[in-house]
Amino acid sequence: MSVHLRPEEIEAESFRIIEEELGQHDWNAQMWPLVRRAIHTSADFDYARSMVITEKAVASGIAALRDGLGVVTDTNMIISGMSKERLGRFKVQASCFVADPQVAKEAKEQGVTRSILAMRKAARDAANGIFVIGNAPTALFELIRLVREEGVRPRLIVALPVGFVGAAESKEAMKELAREFPELQFVSNTGRKGGSNVAAAVMNAILIQAEASASAL
Amino acid sequence: MSVHLRPEEIEAESFRIIEEELGQHDWNAQMWPLVRRAIHTSADFDYARSMVITEKAVASGIAALRDGLGVVTDTNMIISGMSKERLGRFKVQASCFVADPQVAKEAKEQGVTRSILAMRKAARDAANGIFVIGNAPTALFELIRLVREEGVRPRLIVALPVGFVGAAESKEAMKELAREFPELQFVSNTGRKGGSNVAAAVMNAILIQAEASASAL
Repeated sequence: MSVHLRPEEIEAESFRIIEEELGQHDWNAQMWPLVRRAIHTSADFDYARSMVITEKAVASGIAALRDGLGVVTDTNMIISGMSKERLGRFKVQASCFVADPQVAKEAKEQGVTRSILAMRKAARDAANGIFVIGNAPTALFELIRLVREEGVRPRLIVALPVGFVGAAESKEAMKELAREFPELQFVSNTGRKGGSNVAAAVMNAILIQAEASASAL
Repeated sequence: MSVHLRPEEIEAESFRIIEEELGQHDWNAQMWPLVRRAIHTSADFDYARSMVITEKAVASGIAALRDGLGVVTDTNMIISGMSKERLGRFKVQASCFVADPQVAKEAKEQGVTRSILAMRKAARDAANGIFVIGNAPTALFELIRLVREEGVRPRLIVALPVGFVGAAESKEAMKELAREFPELQFVSNTGRKGGSNVAAAVMNAILIQAEASASAL
């Protein structure tokens, strides 16, 4: 009975079931752990088809972690979901500014989402390398603007906002942006689905690969 | 363009789209806000069909909040996802013991998940009224055992563990438990899907109703 498996066996068995039920797929060895963990955290096989990962996304994310660049998120749930132990190993700071009092005050004054101003604040600090969006399309639209108009150059964008108003459109806008800036690396998907849980899962899959490649040095 | 909507308009528009696309459903006025918010947070209409909510679940959850009883979760992500402002209004403490050092130590010694021992620790404190599980089937199996064998009587169980090993089975075991204990109130679903995001969404929907009914007094 499943409940008697040891914790590490539960994850391995989950991955085995996912691979068995999904069957053949075209994800390569660097990308598949991200997709598999997205499915694992959501029990939703849609991610096997809907995810979009640029060729150097994982490598660029790993390099940013090794350089100790900060990870910025649009929700505190993503920070809660990322492995503290693994972030700590790379001395990487994870930040989310949506609850920042100054951000909240300005958002109210301007009548815009706190997510927009939180991204703007994060982008002002060049020590931030990875931007992770799991909730607000407005955060992703703002990040796209920051890249296009203000020269912000994230090492990796994890773009998985969720929802019915703007989420799918914001992800399409990011793919358009990547056509203009071919060096831009991202992990995203197509459609409305996404979420802080899926974004955190993607980051954990990258952190695990970063750790494995660091041990191999 | 969606990005120009004010924050409060984005949520209203999302709910409008969900209701328009889903069409007719049988959820009553207390239950529908929970289901709608689960769909809102996941962009997954499956929840409209898969959720299972007992008749007095929402009322019992609201009563527990009003009584100031604690909310216990199986992940810190759920705590991050719940409205601090609303919990604070009811002076409700939200706790998660999976990262508790004593829990971690004992889990390692016994070769069981930290989730099991975290539930056991939470259940020892009678001030805890609502148990929210969004990740670990082992946490739900343990809570079922605590109800059946040790007389623990949660005012509400939000049972939405996710995954491929035991998640669906644990939710079926809880429905079986509810047949033995007809007074038990729960919010759950059928199948593998669930997650901390969905569990937090359900709690937020209950908190909003609790606040609305408190203002009406």
